[in-house]
Amino acid sequence: MTKRDTGAPLEPLGNTPVIILVRPQMAENIGTTARAMANGGLFHLRLVNPRDGWPQSRAWRVASGADRILEAVTVHPSVDDAIADLHHVYATCPRPRHMIKTVMTARGAAAELRIATQQGLKVGLLFGPERTGLDNEDMARADALIRYPLNPAFLSLNLAQAVMIMAYEWWIAGESMPPRHFVTHETHIATKGELDNFMTHLIRELDACGFLRNAEKRPGMIRNLRHFFARSNVTEQELRTLHGVVRELAHPRYTS
Amino acid sequence: MTKRDTGAPLEPLGNTPVIILVRPQMAENIGTTARAMANGGLFHLRLVNPRDGWPQSRAWRVASGADRILEAVTVHPSVDDAIADLHHVYATCPRPRHMIKTVMTARGAAAELRIATQQGLKVGLLFGPERTGLDNEDMARADALIRYPLNPAFLSLNLAQAVMIMAYEWWIAGESMPPRHFVTHETHIATKGELDNFMTHLIRELDACGFLRNAEKRPGMIRNLRHFFARSNVTEQELRTLHGVVRELAHPRYTS
Repeated sequence: MTKRDTGAPLEPLGNTPVIILVRPQMAENIGTTARAMANGGLFHLRLVNPRDGWPQSRAWRVASGADRILEAVTVHPSVDDAIADLHHVYATCPRPRHMIKTVMTARGAAAELRIATQQGLKVGLLFGPERTGLDNEDMARADALIRYPLNPAFLSLNLAQAVMIMAYEWWIAGESMPPRHFVTHETHIATKGELDNFMTHLIRELDACGFLRNAEKRPGMIRNLRHFFARSNVTEQELRTLHGVVRELAHPRYTS
Repeated sequence: MTKRDTGAPLEPLGNTPVIILVRPQMAENIGTTARAMANGGLFHLRLVNPRDGWPQSRAWRVASGADRILEAVTVHPSVDDAIADLHHVYATCPRPRHMIKTVMTARGAAAELRIATQQGLKVGLLFGPERTGLDNEDMARADALIRYPLNPAFLSLNLAQAVMIMAYEWWIAGESMPPRHFVTHETHIATKGELDNFMTHLIRELDACGFLRNAEKRPGMIRNLRHFFARSNVTEQELRTLHGVVRELAHPRYTS
């Protein structure tokens, strides 16, 4: 692979947001994404089902030396797999559809990302495929949506440009933040993997009891449940309680 | 040329900043610049000595429908020619060198650009060639410099990404501005062409009187004079006075 050594070693700068490209099509966009991430001090890049596989030398060719980001890329078979260890996930979305979810600007999201990472939470940002953007199933995994304030008459935003704007806002949010302050919580927010375990448990029981028997409506019903839990900031402790609720409802120890 | 009709007609949205690419090398970067401009509601694109000439079909291929911006491009033989009708010019510059000039962030510049355009002033933004950026002669034409707050360990910023950040900040600055307010001035700021006429006049007289006779130092001395006048916000009326000062000093009507 073509590599360029710029002499500037890129290192992860503390706890920084993970950039997740969902089904990216063009290797060049993965390379320019890495370059934009380096500009904004981001390091962690994950790919969900890249169309042309990975690695791709074309990515290195346009990364202008952001090689260490590309070398550290991980590839995942699903969004769920890519976000399993994260606590907060934001989805970029030019046209928020009808869903009950917080929508924020890139600037607002960057401020929240700074606060969350300083609290030790792991956060991620989902970016959809070049032509279509994220689909409803992808967005159902997100805590909140990010919509860039840009010209509504021309919404065709290049993937790496979209990453650049978030990386830029991330960097600026850091410059204007007060010195690090750590907040201690009694409990902590569940990871997306822990939430996914609960969703699997819930869906299994809802299938068993017949609640999801309408095959046509089943995907939408599950998606709506995902939307609710994804945005609910559920804690580990609450999840344990919720597991208990489902288990006890489905298999009561005492029947009246 | 390959063209794509997106169905969204792009129009100039009032008095918007002119993007000036100085000696751009890659046609693809001109195309992606047009796309980024469309995202941010910008329209006017000028090229100073594009390396491979103009037009270039490769630009259209990556512009994702921002064709009207490319079709309206003008090509100029020099920076002076490209900025002659503008009142304020800002130069993007990752590493401000030793020069006496205001340095602002992209966000700060966007706010100033909004105020200036609402006052009816024509403004422009200079972006340098991909590899080298603007040179000292280019920057001597600018009122102020713009430096992006980005990771100092990785300053290799793609040209279209640099334009994207300014276009994005321009759009946001408009969203947060109060409704249009027009300010009336008694006089108005000179255009860069009027200033250039004065500089030509001044240099001619300085050559004639021998002030610039040291051939080695001459370019730097002229550049320093340009720096001073470029950042001085000189008005039309003041320029008329300055022309008189130079004329009278060089050719006194009465000698003592």
